[in-house]
Amino acid sequence: MKKLAIISCATAVLLFAASSLSFQSQAAHPNLVITERDVVDMRAAVKEGGRFSNAYHALKANIDFYMTQPNVVPVPKDGGGGYTHERHKKNYQLMYNAGVLYQISQNEAYANYVKDLLLDYAALYPTLDVHPKRKVKSQNPGKLFWQSLNEAVWLVNTIQAYDLVYTALSDGERATIENKLLKPVALFLSEGQPSTFNKVHNHGTWATAGVGMAGYVMDEPEWVEKALYDLEKSGKGGFLRQLDTLFSPQGYYNEGPYYQRYALMPFVTFAKAIENNQPERDVFDYRDGVLLKAIDTTIQLSYNGLFFPINDAIKSKGVDTIELVYGVTVAYGRTGDTAYLDIADKQDHIVLTGDGVKVAKALDDGLTTPYKFRSVAFGDGKDGDEGALVVMRSETNGDSAVLFKPAAQGLGHGHFDKLTWQFYDAGEEIVSDYGAARFLNVEAKFGGRYLPENNSYAKQTVAHNTVVVDEKSHFDGNVKIGNRNAPTLNFFETNAFGTIANGEIETAYDDVSLERTLALIDLPKIDKTVALDIFDVTSSSNHQLDLPLHYKGHLIDTSFPMTANTSSLPALGKDNGYQHLWLKAQGTVEDTLSRVTWLNENGHFYSQLSLVTSPETFLFTQLGAGDPNFNLRNENGFIRRVEGASSHQFVSVLEPHGSYNPSKEFTLNASSSITALSMDEESGIVLVTLTAAEHTFLIAIDKRSAAADESNSFTFNNTSYSLDGRFAVYEL
Amino acid sequence: MKKLAIISCATAVLLFAASSLSFQSQAAHPNLVITERDVVDMRAAVKEGGRFSNAYHALKANIDFYMTQPNVVPVPKDGGGGYTHERHKKNYQLMYNAGVLYQISQNEAYANYVKDLLLDYAALYPTLDVHPKRKVKSQNPGKLFWQSLNEAVWLVNTIQAYDLVYTALSDGERATIENKLLKPVALFLSEGQPSTFNKVHNHGTWATAGVGMAGYVMDEPEWVEKALYDLEKSGKGGFLRQLDTLFSPQGYYNEGPYYQRYALMPFVTFAKAIENNQPERDVFDYRDGVLLKAIDTTIQLSYNGLFFPINDAIKSKGVDTIELVYGVTVAYGRTGDTAYLDIADKQDHIVLTGDGVKVAKALDDGLTTPYKFRSVAFGDGKDGDEGALVVMRSETNGDSAVLFKPAAQGLGHGHFDKLTWQFYDAGEEIVSDYGAARFLNVEAKFGGRYLPENNSYAKQTVAHNTVVVDEKSHFDGNVKIGNRNAPTLNFFETNAFGTIANGEIETAYDDVSLERTLALIDLPKIDKTVALDIFDVTSSSNHQLDLPLHYKGHLIDTSFPMTANTSSLPALGKDNGYQHLWLKAQGTVEDTLSRVTWLNENGHFYSQLSLVTSPETFLFTQLGAGDPNFNLRNENGFIRRVEGASSHQFVSVLEPHGSYNPSKEFTLNASSSITALSMDEESGIVLVTLTAAEHTFLIAIDKRSAAADESNSFTFNNTSYSLDGRFAVYEL
Repeated sequence: MKKLAIISCATAVLLFAASSLSFQSQAAHPNLVITERDVVDMRAAVKEGGRFSNAYHALKANIDFYMTQPNVVPVPKDGGGGYTHERHKKNYQLMYNAGVLYQISQNEAYANYVKDLLLDYAALYPTLDVHPKRKVKSQNPGKLFWQSLNEAVWLVNTIQAYDLVYTALSDGERATIENKLLKPVALFLSEGQPSTFNKVHNHGTWATAGVGMAGYVMDEPEWVEKALYDLEKSGKGGFLRQLDTLFSPQGYYNEGPYYQRYALMPFVTFAKAIENNQPERDVFDYRDGVLLKAIDTTIQLSYNGLFFPINDAIKSKGVDTIELVYGVTVAYGRTGDTAYLDIADKQDHIVLTGDGVKVAKALDDGLTTPYKFRSVAFGDGKDGDEGALVVMRSETNGDSAVLFKPAAQGLGHGHFDKLTWQFYDAGEEIVSDYGAARFLNVEAKFGGRYLPENNSYAKQTVAHNTVVVDEKSHFDGNVKIGNRNAPTLNFFETNAFGTIANGEIETAYDDVSLERTLALIDLPKIDKTVALDIFDVTSSSNHQLDLPLHYKGHLIDTSFPMTANTSSLPALGKDNGYQHLWLKAQGTVEDTLSRVTWLNENGHFYSQLSLVTSPETFLFTQLGAGDPNFNLRNENGFIRRVEGASSHQFVSVLEPHGSYNPSKEFTLNASSSITALSMDEESGIVLVTLTAAEHTFLIAIDKRSAAADESNSFTFNNTSYSLDGRFAVYEL
Repeated sequence: MKKLAIISCATAVLLFAASSLSFQSQAAHPNLVITERDVVDMRAAVKEGGRFSNAYHALKANIDFYMTQPNVVPVPKDGGGGYTHERHKKNYQLMYNAGVLYQISQNEAYANYVKDLLLDYAALYPTLDVHPKRKVKSQNPGKLFWQSLNEAVWLVNTIQAYDLVYTALSDGERATIENKLLKPVALFLSEGQPSTFNKVHNHGTWATAGVGMAGYVMDEPEWVEKALYDLEKSGKGGFLRQLDTLFSPQGYYNEGPYYQRYALMPFVTFAKAIENNQPERDVFDYRDGVLLKAIDTTIQLSYNGLFFPINDAIKSKGVDTIELVYGVTVAYGRTGDTAYLDIADKQDHIVLTGDGVKVAKALDDGLTTPYKFRSVAFGDGKDGDEGALVVMRSETNGDSAVLFKPAAQGLGHGHFDKLTWQFYDAGEEIVSDYGAARFLNVEAKFGGRYLPENNSYAKQTVAHNTVVVDEKSHFDGNVKIGNRNAPTLNFFETNAFGTIANGEIETAYDDVSLERTLALIDLPKIDKTVALDIFDVTSSSNHQLDLPLHYKGHLIDTSFPMTANTSSLPALGKDNGYQHLWLKAQGTVEDTLSRVTWLNENGHFYSQLSLVTSPETFLFTQLGAGDPNFNLRNENGFIRRVEGASSHQFVSVLEPHGSYNPSKEFTLNASSSITALSMDEESGIVLVTLTAAEHTFLIAIDKRSAAADESNSFTFNNTSYSLDGRFAVYEL
């Protein structure tokens, strides 16, 4: 029956199917991420001592403790963060880990522990309806969990646990577990929820990974096909379509690094299982090796161990997350690139797999080489042509970075933040992004889900460091329109002077064009790295133009007088995020170099120097208005505002300087060293002069579309200069 | 002449003088903190390698670098934090350190470096008038610095530098340096500023230390006498009077640990010099060894390396400050107590002195034993009877501490915070004290001095966690009245159940008595340590009673409904600190157990459960109103308010619980485990019942004045209990 059904479906995507009508013939267990061959290596590595052995013994001690406790498989009741939710999460981790211990130790006690839990689940699962805490009208409820995403993660782990103890089970036990539990779960997550299973989205990746791996273990080749090509095997959805579409050619995941990290786990896990079961699919070389590129890009999209928190991101997530631990382990296992050991060393977490053996041994043998963080423009969109996420780095004077985002919307978790930027220095976020408004799994905070303020503030344009026109968010806050309209990356170059990029978008507002040039520049002689920002706004009609800058730290002073609201604090606006900002103070400046200085938690000073050529009002804000449940962090920012302008150029330089050490009682260079800034543009070449610490620099930027490859010359103050590439710095 | 003058002054305090009419006969150099004998040990230690040798080589590399730079002795111009201020500070450090290097290395280059700087100063100093940035009408201007305090510190360091290179100088050079520089500075700081020199205050300690040490080095025994007994040698001021008065018998300095740490430096330094020059004075045994007690108490008054930030304290100061490095080094040198090595190890700073050799060798030899932080009531005031500063600690379930302050005002840096408390857990401040409002040495922030908001907010009662009556601060904010009226410590006990203390004050307000009982209690069975707080306010007339609690973290939720100010935020009041608080939300509760839960930066949850028996309004505040210059940190708190009451009892329990780890994606025990709280009092025995995690505990506290030493019995719910000491916990 099954065989006939498959053959009758004559589509191109079924070319692979002929070789995999049944996996039963192989009959090897385990054979998902961990294979029989891996187990031999793992047993040997445990005997040899070192990191792998240490990791094994640490896990063993942990699981041995839990095995002294009663097994608990509770009737599902609580939402995210609640007791039954956390317990079911704990259970799949326990089952997976005990399964691994069984394979390594060959001690039946571990297999029995997994078996007992699986049988408990097999007794419970048939009694369950959809979860009582599911969202109303949800398309994707779970049964064990409030949403099927968690249920898919449960399956990805549990099917591996089952595979790991498969050989220790009787036929009857297998029948019970498969028929009462694993097959029903797999069917519930596939046929039972077509819209989620077929979706080209990370929820779909978890579902297809779980169901596909279930297919390998329980000899359901059809499930594997559906996992790879969608329920209709059309190729319009499924795992391979996700690999085609969710990553750019450079391996950038269009929801941003926080979700890229999360998405990696099922991709890497299922890919390993495909590789081990059907090496002929060559999944790691699929699309020019996009999966390995995706792992590497995830690492690149971090600063000081934490991911750049664009879009809906929990800011404490970084390279030590378990998903990237697995990713780096697999990447090293495939490539043998010793720079991955540098990351693995920082992760300080050896996973108990075959690749984990390789990583542990290489670390033990001291093979680590430095991992190089680079300045890169990661093309966005499946073809890499929907703008880019740009990373600029400099280690010339410490450790600075700029994240510049002329990137696409990034689906439902994307923010309306076209051309926004962030600045990092000395290990810290200086110009910040709020990330997601969410207390993950804290029941009292909106059930631990995204807070209402995630929509009303965190996603809105004013929550970011980019221009807001007429107090409305980009695309008027419409995700669908956002998804259809990406910015353009006009140029990106990294050279001896630093890194520069220019991006623009004409569709964020009906009749307003936004163009931004950002550069991270190493100034010679004075040992400083500064960020230069030129934001051009042009329109055919007059608008209110706001450019916010959200800073981390305590305001020290401004170069211009301010009027503060001292006895009553008004909200700045009524909608689009403005209703969440208190207006603390304001000052209007004209025709001057305007400075704002702040001090961060680590005792470093930062000054933003704005070249103001037509009147601007600086509005100093604090987050927290319109927030009756205290859901928002009370962060600080200032907004440069221009009223009734059809065009405006916001020009500024951000300078790190000095240090404050009240413990050791010294304060150095608390004042900015920048004393003058000017800007001019001549036939497409932008000329910025900057005087800092009594040196004057000329920064020339060639914005002409044909400029990049040729050498050019220009004249400034009657002196002729030659310019190779996009930009250069000269001392005057 | 000199001899005659001394003998003619026949006071008891001159008993020592006979043996020290001239130090010239000794003629040993160096002989202040570092002696010729020490130098022998130091030279040997450098040759042996280890920590001392490492410290020497690190200092040498540092000073060698500075010696390649031009010497700069600028004309004084800037206030605290400004260039000339910092340069003169740098210079005395350079001179002292180069002097030490000269003694160890015997390399003349170091001596010449010190000599050149001293001669530069000798050329500059006679040209100087008082400092241009001195405070108007200042009693204590400096010449090199804006205030003479810095000048005294300069002298303490520079006189040691001079002593260290003394033997390398010619007679002519010595004459120039002494007559043009060192003697004029010493005279300016003594005869020139009698009010500061004679003052029993840390400014006086620095001045007397500098002048006294100058007396030893330059053979002016009279100066030593004046330093010890004041300018009139009356004993009403001077160093020994400071030792008599500024510390309690237990070694608590009445301005609090931040200033205790600062004050230690001249005490320890001058004491070492006295000991080396006049061992017959037995200064380290003076007043039952109060100086060593003071060093130990300074360590005890810290939590996780940072000092309890009461009064005007910069919160980042802790046990690794240089003053306490010297203190611990001297304490180990005197006592050989290997527990001090535990602190020295954490300080990770070896000083290049004779005692430094001892510490370094002992650390090298692994002699360290754990330093024990204890629960102690440190009596306040010179006789230890002006209340107490109470520290309660528990390491039973982690690392919790309570600081309770029924302590005296603490002079001009004291805050109006009678009976305030703070709570610490898991290494962090949970219920906090603002400390000082100051950006030390940041010129743009009020010249780096105490900000105006230090008086208008940080010192006010509402800035603390204690009762404010009718929105007025204790003693109506009058320091003099505060200094005359200390609270009473009624009892303190630490036993198997935890630690408890009770203090009261009747003079903070005209007709209101404040009494507080605080306990840090280990609850058996459920592995929890909680803080119990019972605050009794009684008066003959009706008042508004506010009890603020300043918490560190993000509000999670409250058990009662709140009305929030979402579009406009009013200041809470007009004066006494209330003008700096925004009123974010409020809720009124009656006859209920009211819970407030927050989450701190490290992912720990805390709940305060208030037993409300008559109506209270909870006012949620954020600091930052009335702050046009953004001088205040925007911290959070809530105030329990009772209107028109002649008496009220504020009862609450603070419970640490659970953890939030968004990086690892788990949230545990986000809800308080406490479900019931009741309180009763019968003939002086307070009976609190507390239900937590399904266990019910009875906490009995015997408040009767005669109770402490005898065993008592009481009846609760028809069961008889026996109580030894002040309090006990029973499971019901």
